[in-house]
Amino acid sequence: MRDNKRVYTFGNGLAEGAADMRNLLGGKGANLAEMNRIGVPVPPGFTITTETCNEYFARGKDTLISLLSDEVMRAVHHIEGLMGATFGDPSNPLLVSVRSGARASMPGMMDTILNLGLNDTVVEGLAKKTGNPRFAYDSYRRFVQMYGDVVLGMKPETKEDIAPFEEIIDRVKAQRGVRLDNELNVDELKSLVVLFKQEIKRRTGKDFPTDPMEQLWGAICAVFDSWMNERAILYRKMEGIPAEWGTAVNVQAMVFGNMGDTSATGVCFSRNAGTGENVFNGEYLVNAQGEDVVAGIRTPQQITKAGSLDWAHQQGISEEVRASLYPSMEEAMPEIYAELDMLQQRLEAHYKDMQDMEFTVQDGKLWFLQTRNGKRTGTAMVKIAMDLLRDGVIDEKTALLRCEPHKLDELLHPVFDPVAKSQAKVLTHGLPASPGAASGQIVFFADDATRWHDDGRRVIMVRIETSPEDLAGMSAAEGILTARGGMTSHAAVVARGMGKCCVSGAGAINIDYKHRTVEIDGVVLKEGDYLSLNGSTGEVYQGLVKTQPAELTGDFAELMTLCEKYTKLVVRTNADTPHDAAIARSFGAVGIGLCRTEHMFFENEKIKAMREMILADTKEGREKALAKLLPYQKQDFYGILKSMDGCPVNVRLLDPPLHEFVPHDLAGQQIMADEMGISVQEIQRRVNSLSEHNPMLGHRGCRLGNTYPEITVMQTRAILSAAIQLKKEGYDPQPEIMIPLIGIVNEFDEQEKVIRDTALQLFAEEGVELHFRVGTMIEIPRAALTADQIARHAEYFSFGTNDLTQMTFGYSRDDIASFLPVYLDKKILSVDPFQELDQEGVGQLIRMAVERGRSTRPDLPCGICGEHGGDPHSVKFCHHIGLSYVSCSPFRVPIARLSAAQAAIE
Amino acid sequence: MRDNKRVYTFGNGLAEGAADMRNLLGGKGANLAEMNRIGVPVPPGFTITTETCNEYFARGKDTLISLLSDEVMRAVHHIEGLMGATFGDPSNPLLVSVRSGARASMPGMMDTILNLGLNDTVVEGLAKKTGNPRFAYDSYRRFVQMYGDVVLGMKPETKEDIAPFEEIIDRVKAQRGVRLDNELNVDELKSLVVLFKQEIKRRTGKDFPTDPMEQLWGAICAVFDSWMNERAILYRKMEGIPAEWGTAVNVQAMVFGNMGDTSATGVCFSRNAGTGENVFNGEYLVNAQGEDVVAGIRTPQQITKAGSLDWAHQQGISEEVRASLYPSMEEAMPEIYAELDMLQQRLEAHYKDMQDMEFTVQDGKLWFLQTRNGKRTGTAMVKIAMDLLRDGVIDEKTALLRCEPHKLDELLHPVFDPVAKSQAKVLTHGLPASPGAASGQIVFFADDATRWHDDGRRVIMVRIETSPEDLAGMSAAEGILTARGGMTSHAAVVARGMGKCCVSGAGAINIDYKHRTVEIDGVVLKEGDYLSLNGSTGEVYQGLVKTQPAELTGDFAELMTLCEKYTKLVVRTNADTPHDAAIARSFGAVGIGLCRTEHMFFENEKIKAMREMILADTKEGREKALAKLLPYQKQDFYGILKSMDGCPVNVRLLDPPLHEFVPHDLAGQQIMADEMGISVQEIQRRVNSLSEHNPMLGHRGCRLGNTYPEITVMQTRAILSAAIQLKKEGYDPQPEIMIPLIGIVNEFDEQEKVIRDTALQLFAEEGVELHFRVGTMIEIPRAALTADQIARHAEYFSFGTNDLTQMTFGYSRDDIASFLPVYLDKKILSVDPFQELDQEGVGQLIRMAVERGRSTRPDLPCGICGEHGGDPHSVKFCHHIGLSYVSCSPFRVPIARLSAAQAAIE
Repeated sequence: MRDNKRVYTFGNGLAEGAADMRNLLGGKGANLAEMNRIGVPVPPGFTITTETCNEYFARGKDTLISLLSDEVMRAVHHIEGLMGATFGDPSNPLLVSVRSGARASMPGMMDTILNLGLNDTVVEGLAKKTGNPRFAYDSYRRFVQMYGDVVLGMKPETKEDIAPFEEIIDRVKAQRGVRLDNELNVDELKSLVVLFKQEIKRRTGKDFPTDPMEQLWGAICAVFDSWMNERAILYRKMEGIPAEWGTAVNVQAMVFGNMGDTSATGVCFSRNAGTGENVFNGEYLVNAQGEDVVAGIRTPQQITKAGSLDWAHQQGISEEVRASLYPSMEEAMPEIYAELDMLQQRLEAHYKDMQDMEFTVQDGKLWFLQTRNGKRTGTAMVKIAMDLLRDGVIDEKTALLRCEPHKLDELLHPVFDPVAKSQAKVLTHGLPASPGAASGQIVFFADDATRWHDDGRRVIMVRIETSPEDLAGMSAAEGILTARGGMTSHAAVVARGMGKCCVSGAGAINIDYKHRTVEIDGVVLKEGDYLSLNGSTGEVYQGLVKTQPAELTGDFAELMTLCEKYTKLVVRTNADTPHDAAIARSFGAVGIGLCRTEHMFFENEKIKAMREMILADTKEGREKALAKLLPYQKQDFYGILKSMDGCPVNVRLLDPPLHEFVPHDLAGQQIMADEMGISVQEIQRRVNSLSEHNPMLGHRGCRLGNTYPEITVMQTRAILSAAIQLKKEGYDPQPEIMIPLIGIVNEFDEQEKVIRDTALQLFAEEGVELHFRVGTMIEIPRAALTADQIARHAEYFSFGTNDLTQMTFGYSRDDIASFLPVYLDKKILSVDPFQELDQEGVGQLIRMAVERGRSTRPDLPCGICGEHGGDPHSVKFCHHIGLSYVSCSPFRVPIARLSAAQAAIE
Repeated sequence: MRDNKRVYTFGNGLAEGAADMRNLLGGKGANLAEMNRIGVPVPPGFTITTETCNEYFARGKDTLISLLSDEVMRAVHHIEGLMGATFGDPSNPLLVSVRSGARASMPGMMDTILNLGLNDTVVEGLAKKTGNPRFAYDSYRRFVQMYGDVVLGMKPETKEDIAPFEEIIDRVKAQRGVRLDNELNVDELKSLVVLFKQEIKRRTGKDFPTDPMEQLWGAICAVFDSWMNERAILYRKMEGIPAEWGTAVNVQAMVFGNMGDTSATGVCFSRNAGTGENVFNGEYLVNAQGEDVVAGIRTPQQITKAGSLDWAHQQGISEEVRASLYPSMEEAMPEIYAELDMLQQRLEAHYKDMQDMEFTVQDGKLWFLQTRNGKRTGTAMVKIAMDLLRDGVIDEKTALLRCEPHKLDELLHPVFDPVAKSQAKVLTHGLPASPGAASGQIVFFADDATRWHDDGRRVIMVRIETSPEDLAGMSAAEGILTARGGMTSHAAVVARGMGKCCVSGAGAINIDYKHRTVEIDGVVLKEGDYLSLNGSTGEVYQGLVKTQPAELTGDFAELMTLCEKYTKLVVRTNADTPHDAAIARSFGAVGIGLCRTEHMFFENEKIKAMREMILADTKEGREKALAKLLPYQKQDFYGILKSMDGCPVNVRLLDPPLHEFVPHDLAGQQIMADEMGISVQEIQRRVNSLSEHNPMLGHRGCRLGNTYPEITVMQTRAILSAAIQLKKEGYDPQPEIMIPLIGIVNEFDEQEKVIRDTALQLFAEEGVELHFRVGTMIEIPRAALTADQIARHAEYFSFGTNDLTQMTFGYSRDDIASFLPVYLDKKILSVDPFQELDQEGVGQLIRMAVERGRSTRPDLPCGICGEHGGDPHSVKFCHHIGLSYVSCSPFRVPIARLSAAQAAIE
């Protein structure tokens, strides 16, 4: 509690808060204060702090109101003074908005109430004062509706339940024979208010509050309450926002975009949020309130003329129609546009980042309602950071820190294969709301999306428009297609935040929710049919269109080069094939941190020899089968070592339990029996003898090599003879041989002896010597605990954080689903430890192993090769404990490189 | 290397060595030296040190002979001087024995050569000098045979292969029409020597060495080699003797027990090795060499008259026959007996422990060949220690340290149920060679014993006599029955060492190895038939006789009382039933360290309710089923708390995966479906949904309680309401509630809250408050690593070393069999970490958890409740790291108590 001050006022170029008080005032509140300070016109108001939100939940509503009462009254008077109007005074009424505003942006997740301060007498005063009774009663009916929904709990409870207010509106419209809300006249609006209040009384048993202060307290508490609503909690979980942050509440004088044709409301971006281009853009609606833009009910117009022309082209609208029905603000309100453009430039220059702004024009006067650093796609993020760097606005370190590593994922998303795309049928165009390519099966409802996704299907969610209730479904879908809504509609904003492909406002699609079909240009598709979306162009394709990987070029490549300048941690890749190795190398990997050999055994002849080896009863039998595998393995290693020429390639010896290689179905067993000339019963007996209660803790890893050293001999020969061949051909192979699943130093020593002996014999045969290293995977807790001993002979450590996490927690990754959701819900775990490295437990073991290993061998290279190697938090941890490298899947290499650079800078 | 001195001489009351040089001279060598020093007549000789054995394996035979040569020559001359005879001199030949002797006794495991120094000319001289050509040639043929076997590799290689020398003897005996070896005359013995040498030449291509020094070097090296023979390695593994200890070699002047009727040889014990009674006893044979006693070929006679009378009674031999054919030494050689008795008392007084001695009488003169602390049964161990303590020979600490904890196991072995025994048919009597009761199926061969045992069958091994080759089989058997051999036969000595029941020398049994049958008194039993043995009485019963548990009384009880005086570590028990709790309490457990609740759910009504709970879809459904379980659980806890009244009872909440409780067979599923009124398909679907890839790492432990808190509520109510009822009845229940499988502090905190809330509600309902503690099991590595956090709320720690070992090593206990044998063979592991706590890895985590836990909560009680709680080494480790208690199965409580006392004394 900062001096027990809970309320901060702003207005008329002055403010008690500032941009650096974001944690206390929330992003919106801090920026409203800051905008005042830099001369941007903002309706006066005040912010109740985020700390008060926590107090609210800790001490309850009544205590809080009594604590806040004096400060809020003072602040209301502050607004009244600046606006020359009085709260609840019918002759000169002040209306206010009440909005949430957390430290991090959570668009659409919490509640807002507009036009607060109206009642049956004040509305009459407003009508008289503005000379616009229709505006006054439309404002009143919106207020009652919104207040009823948010504060009085009138929201529909189930999907089937029709929203009660919407039902009344539809009934009234039907009676009067009108189609659109804005066709309703004053009397009809008046009767809506009466009907709304009756319905509220009927449902809640309470009268609608007429006292403006009572209304205000109800709204403030409702905004606090909305911090704990389900969708806010879900969003926080997805974005990793702690519940303790709380939300601030912003109360501001209302300004009206719906006071006639000299009024408007809109949102705009200082640069393109999808591509990052330095082009001012946005959308607005004449004679509308802000909610109308975001909700996507009316088709918004473009702010700039250039934007308007592009939009019309995409929509297939003629210039004639565009200019008359959808003119840009630049054309329709040139002076206001000029001020808006000037101020957006000032804001971007002030914040040194792309801004996302909301504004309202009331009767020819421009007001800014909000500015914030704009959400953007990964592509835009990189381009904007590099543009700002080139323009000297920010320095290199800032440019690097500005980029969120996990968002690079979007740039690595596949794009459509050009050939496949050229052959695919384009059904329609929508807005390129969030880039990327996506294919999947059509679903229409969020819960279906979630369920189908959980069943392993890829789905495209098709909606008329989306709402916060659709969040989980959108998260589960590959892409989202909406019939209505612009680039700033709910669907577009959320999809960009998720880095998910989205095409919005595709007006040509007709959705029939009841029959679960969508008709596009005469083609009727039903639930489960395939559809493909290009979120970068807005194209919608029929069927499944083939995709291909992205490339590292342009700004992205420059960013990566910049990383090198600051990074200490080297990034390698996990790759089992020359193809993967090549991709990773193109993304900047400087070696292979984990080359698994087990996948190499599954092709036709190989799996036969492998099975023969497994089912052999004697060492001689196994050796005979292994001899057949040797040339295949050599060939595999030849390709991988060649594609990583000059870089280290860390090959892990055979790791999985042998059970995984044998056939478990009768047909497969019969084939095997025939091939091996023994009975199928004998095959079954041997297959059964390999089955284990807990294969994760069973006969695998170096336990295989130590029971069947001949496997290690074969693999060593394959690796080193491939390397020798390459060396003879003039390449520079750098093989590393890794012994997996060490728990006891003797396990390592035994296997190392086998490897060294095999190497010496091979070198003698070939007449060539070759440097190679023998290291181990630290993935068993006991190995970490005895790392000082293991480092006596092991030349490097590679942390297998998947297994280490399994054993340190005692979790089977395959079985965790039965309790992980509950654990995340109850906050027993804050994240899935398989996604983000558990620094406290698993990390402690890693730190211990590094320290102990280096106490024996000071220059011991240590790396990480679990999937955590591509997780930004985990990479930073690896940097801090002094690891030499991280290794991750090819598509995570850029993410790891950026994370490593950021760790070094921070 | 001690001054590079490798050879230590002794003889005629002087010795370079002494008893405290056991590590260097081996037990036999040190005691031979010591006996000289205290005036016990010992044939002169010398000892080659154990360190030389290691040199031998490190540097090879030739180097060693050259290094030893001077010292050995000097030592040979030393013997020659004292004996007035010369090695290799036909006119006055010195013969020597060459024997092994390691730091720890390894009876019969290594090789011995007697009568060394004979060749074709020396034998003539010996015949002349002794005037006994038969003796000379019998000695010669024994020497050639023994040397051929041991040094020249003439042992049979397979079970089917007949020993070549035995074959020759049988052939000659058949030709001459004689039955026993000692019926062969001088010429026949001479021809045996010739035939033996021919066979050696034929098989090995080499002539038998005639030079006594060459013979000596061959014998010395062969003894060293025998340190590495298979059965010695197996024995060392069983007894935990390190290979690095090596064996010494003892070369001694031969004395002959086979020089006629004034000569004899025997073994004796200063007390009874089976019962511990302070009664001098032993066996001897007139006109025989020592090997004849041990091999059990001739029936030996008793040393004392009392012993002889008992023996005759057991064998059903009349006094007339006994006195004439089997007189005791006390009767047959009264002067020698008097000297023997005097010297055995001197030896026991000197060593302050029961002695196991070998002696030879040569032509009326008594020589001691060996003394050592006698192997004994657990019963004898306790009785002897307590007797010596009462007699003031040793002090309390020595008495406690004298007892090997694991040998107490024998005292806890079941005995036959008196009723069952009285009804069983006694087939015959043998010698009570090693006490205990055993029942099982008959097998005749060692490898069958091993295989049947591995298949889970209990076997009784029935042999004419046993040999070192039978060791593994004896180890696998429940008991051993032999037709031949006395109380000091191979079978008897080895069985006592193993603490295994043995009846030896049951002359009435006739074994037919070929048809795998045994005929006893007209009853023919075949392989696989049941047989029961009483090793304490020598009785052999037909069929399976029921057994009952042992009791803690007499000396055993006194020993346990003595433990209390020195112990710091408290011993609790693992018990799930009032019955087990009562047994453990009778053995001195002062609380329950682990009360598992899962076994309580398996009885009829309980398992039904449990399954109903598991298959319920809703919390309400689960609560309904749990309400049915509550009274059963309460009743169980009532019984256990009552039987441990006044002592803490640590109840672990439900731990195993739910999968273990549901039926997996169609019939069981059908019954369940009928009972629950749902389809069998639905039952199957739910059962399948519970199956896991790695159940050990799955949904179990507190993960259950955290997903289904209603289970924790029910169990808490059951425990505490049982305790409240007892309190109301005037008892002093001390319940502890343990949350299992904690890995994250939040898991504990959530469950603790449920427990505390439930308790408060229950106390309010009952109007009674009760003190109880809530603690946790530390069995996940992460819990040990974050123990400081967990101790914030946990009131005690209990280390679950089974799971902690599983996860620290990454071993599944159920699957370890596939590689553990290889790991033990290759010395990757020195012991099974589930048998003996791995101090280095798992122990490190325990130590860390204790330190960290106590850094938060200085008085944190810490205990161990894995099966390691009953392993002596592990108990000592627990003492050293400051644990508060160990908990083990009821029958291991005395072992843990003794180990704890020893740890405190050491």
